[in-house]
Amino acid sequence: MTEPTPTSSPPAGEPVLLQSRDARGVYTLTLNTPRSFNVLSEAMLSALQAAVASVAADPQARLVVMAASGRAFCAGHDLKQMRASPELAYYQKLFAQCSRLMLAIRQLEVPVVARVQGLATAAGCQLVAQCDLAVASDNATFGVNGIDVGLFCATPSVALSRNILPKQAMEMLLTGDFISAEEARARGLVNRVVAPDALDAALHTLVDRILAKPREAVAMGKALFYRQLETGIESAYQLAGQTMACNMAHDVAQEGVQAFIDKRAPSWRA
Amino acid sequence: MTEPTPTSSPPAGEPVLLQSRDARGVYTLTLNTPRSFNVLSEAMLSALQAAVASVAADPQARLVVMAASGRAFCAGHDLKQMRASPELAYYQKLFAQCSRLMLAIRQLEVPVVARVQGLATAAGCQLVAQCDLAVASDNATFGVNGIDVGLFCATPSVALSRNILPKQAMEMLLTGDFISAEEARARGLVNRVVAPDALDAALHTLVDRILAKPREAVAMGKALFYRQLETGIESAYQLAGQTMACNMAHDVAQEGVQAFIDKRAPSWRA
Amino acid sequence: MTEPTPTSSPPAGEPVLLQSRDARGVYTLTLNTPRSFNVLSEAMLSALQAAVASVAADPQARLVVMAASGRAFCAGHDLKQMRASPELAYYQKLFAQCSRLMLAIRQLEVPVVARVQGLATAAGCQLVAQCDLAVASDNATFGVNGIDVGLFCATPSVALSRNILPKQAMEMLLTGDFISAEEARARGLVNRVVAPDALDAALHTLVDRILAKPREAVAMGKALFYRQLETGIESAYQLAGQTMACNMAHDVAQEGVQAFIDKRAPSWRA
Repeated sequence: MTEPTPTSSPPAGEPVLLQSRDARGVYTLTLNTPRSFNVLSEAMLSALQAAVASVAADPQARLVVMAASGRAFCAGHDLKQMRASPELAYYQKLFAQCSRLMLAIRQLEVPVVARVQGLATAAGCQLVAQCDLAVASDNATFGVNGIDVGLFCATPSVALSRNILPKQAMEMLLTGDFISAEEARARGLVNRVVAPDALDAALHTLVDRILAKPREAVAMGKALFYRQLETGIESAYQLAGQTMACNMAHDVAQEGVQAFIDKRAPSWRA
Repeated sequence: MTEPTPTSSPPAGEPVLLQSRDARGVYTLTLNTPRSFNVLSEAMLSALQAAVASVAADPQARLVVMAASGRAFCAGHDLKQMRASPELAYYQKLFAQCSRLMLAIRQLEVPVVARVQGLATAAGCQLVAQCDLAVASDNATFGVNGIDVGLFCATPSVALSRNILPKQAMEMLLTGDFISAEEARARGLVNRVVAPDALDAALHTLVDRILAKPREAVAMGKALFYRQLETGIESAYQLAGQTMACNMAHDVAQEGVQAFIDKRAPSWRA
Repeated sequence: MTEPTPTSSPPAGEPVLLQSRDARGVYTLTLNTPRSFNVLSEAMLSALQAAVASVAADPQARLVVMAASGRAFCAGHDLKQMRASPELAYYQKLFAQCSRLMLAIRQLEVPVVARVQGLATAAGCQLVAQCDLAVASDNATFGVNGIDVGLFCATPSVALSRNILPKQAMEMLLTGDFISAEEARARGLVNRVVAPDALDAALHTLVDRILAKPREAVAMGKALFYRQLETGIESAYQLAGQTMACNMAHDVAQEGVQAFIDKRAPSWRA
């Protein structure tokens, strides 16, 4: 285990990852080493992995907001820490740990929404791409610029190339060039872009929209969505038909559909 | 078999699906229960399946226009009918039937073009996505809002996520929010958007462009296009090379290429 | 072997493909039968295949620019030559040869950048799509219009449908309609569009950006990018994690990261 470098320490007395849960089941995970632009140090990756596991274990969890302290969202891996352990085995372990975190985000039953207020680079850009949805401030910028230090953003490319079109991804990966939040929205990497002082309002609007749906339907849907994306269309329709039948037979859809017929609001929370 | 509900009945004396075929081989299938926003009731699904089978059996068929009566294109499944048979087995059968229809559209030799004049929601949005091409009025709107009644649009997500980028699809699926026709065009869900009174002209322009090509080449091409999309690139090139060689060796391409060399129009219809 | 037709001959005394290599390892391959709009005749395909093999054999190669003489980029296959050998076996051989070239471009360790100054049609559009990146003049146009002579652009569809969204590709393939350079950029087929007299400057800016990165990282990255695109996300993360660990353990990343920590430029060329 490498010593945390000074720059990747949290503010005095604070953890590297702030965690909160509101009464509705919304978790907010806040990367909290702003002086290092919230790099994904070993400590940060471990904290994120543990936090995601906590959400997975909470049957009342509804949604995760992935946020960050300070002016940057996340500057990727901790280069000082990586340079301090120049061994292949160490790097294999590190990227495997990071990939497990990314897959855990995807495997969570609840949606994960990135709140991006500034720089999102390399594995930081990957984190945005791996979230289910993303809301960004209009001064946020996105890049996979590891190549500028001679390190092609291989694992970030996995998430990025599953968000945006391949020539656009390849250009970012080979040049290290950044794109604006608006460009990220146009390309499919983020969902909504607003002025910095409207970021939380936009986030809450989106979160509230999702919380108004029944948890069970969202969970079935998220899992199905990613599974069907990876198969041929015939198999995808089989999986989706099965999911949709189970969802329709479930109390939440029976009540929702009945409420629609009765022209009243559904009472999923009684 | 459930009783058709009042709202999903066609106008008096008319079938749930209007069908016509012009002298050129263009079929127009018109969803015709406008009072129910042309929902995909069992009767409608059966009528569509039969109509698609008729097209498949007609060697002179050239193209299908998927249209709808009234102000909406299609509001998805028939919720009243679904609520009336609250059994898993029934829902499995229903979604399997719908998926078979969607795959049959894809497997048709001839192109299927959606003509979207209004609301296209849930399985209605799926129908647009599953068509090969789509032309929309600028007041059309698109949503996969089953989640609003507690039913994640699982089968629609199969077609939608094969048309547009994943974060954009996920947002629509989780929020139930609608997008405009122009947004649908920018994202890849529809091909052309025009003013309502220009919709038929735009449709006919597109249809005429396709009818000017030889049926055989279009049929080989459509089948190849979807098959190669589902394989790795090496296998895709093998399939495509084989298709293109067969197409080039065929009379239609021999004549087309000769006409090009001779600087004259090809005579495919002599 | 067919006699080259007059129109697919190069200018007197010149080869069908101009080839140059600068001191930095940048190859420029220039399609050079401008009177035939640089069609991919057998001679041209063979010359391209040999040139790509030369690049592959040069350990100092850094990048390939795919360019063309005259007012058009490339008008696709040589229709006169194809018409002169109306045999299935000949066509199978021809498209297999073309597909091998396309896959060889993808398998090259170094990036291939298309420089598109005019018409790019059918296999010419495919060539742009198959390159890793593309820069275009704003008067360039793109089409897969084989269908206009009764020949569906099957092999071009493989590359095109891996660049842009499916309904957009299908429309181009079925109608033969052309799109502008700006539309091609918006859809993901090209990366940058500039005025004709700014084309070389834009190309050189992009090339210089890539040459500033270490060759080894670019090579590892390009290979990984395409491999991971064709697998499920778990397998993709495994491949990418392995690549990234090897890249990080390599001298180029060790030096790059150390230079970053030291706030100095990396010395990859010492």
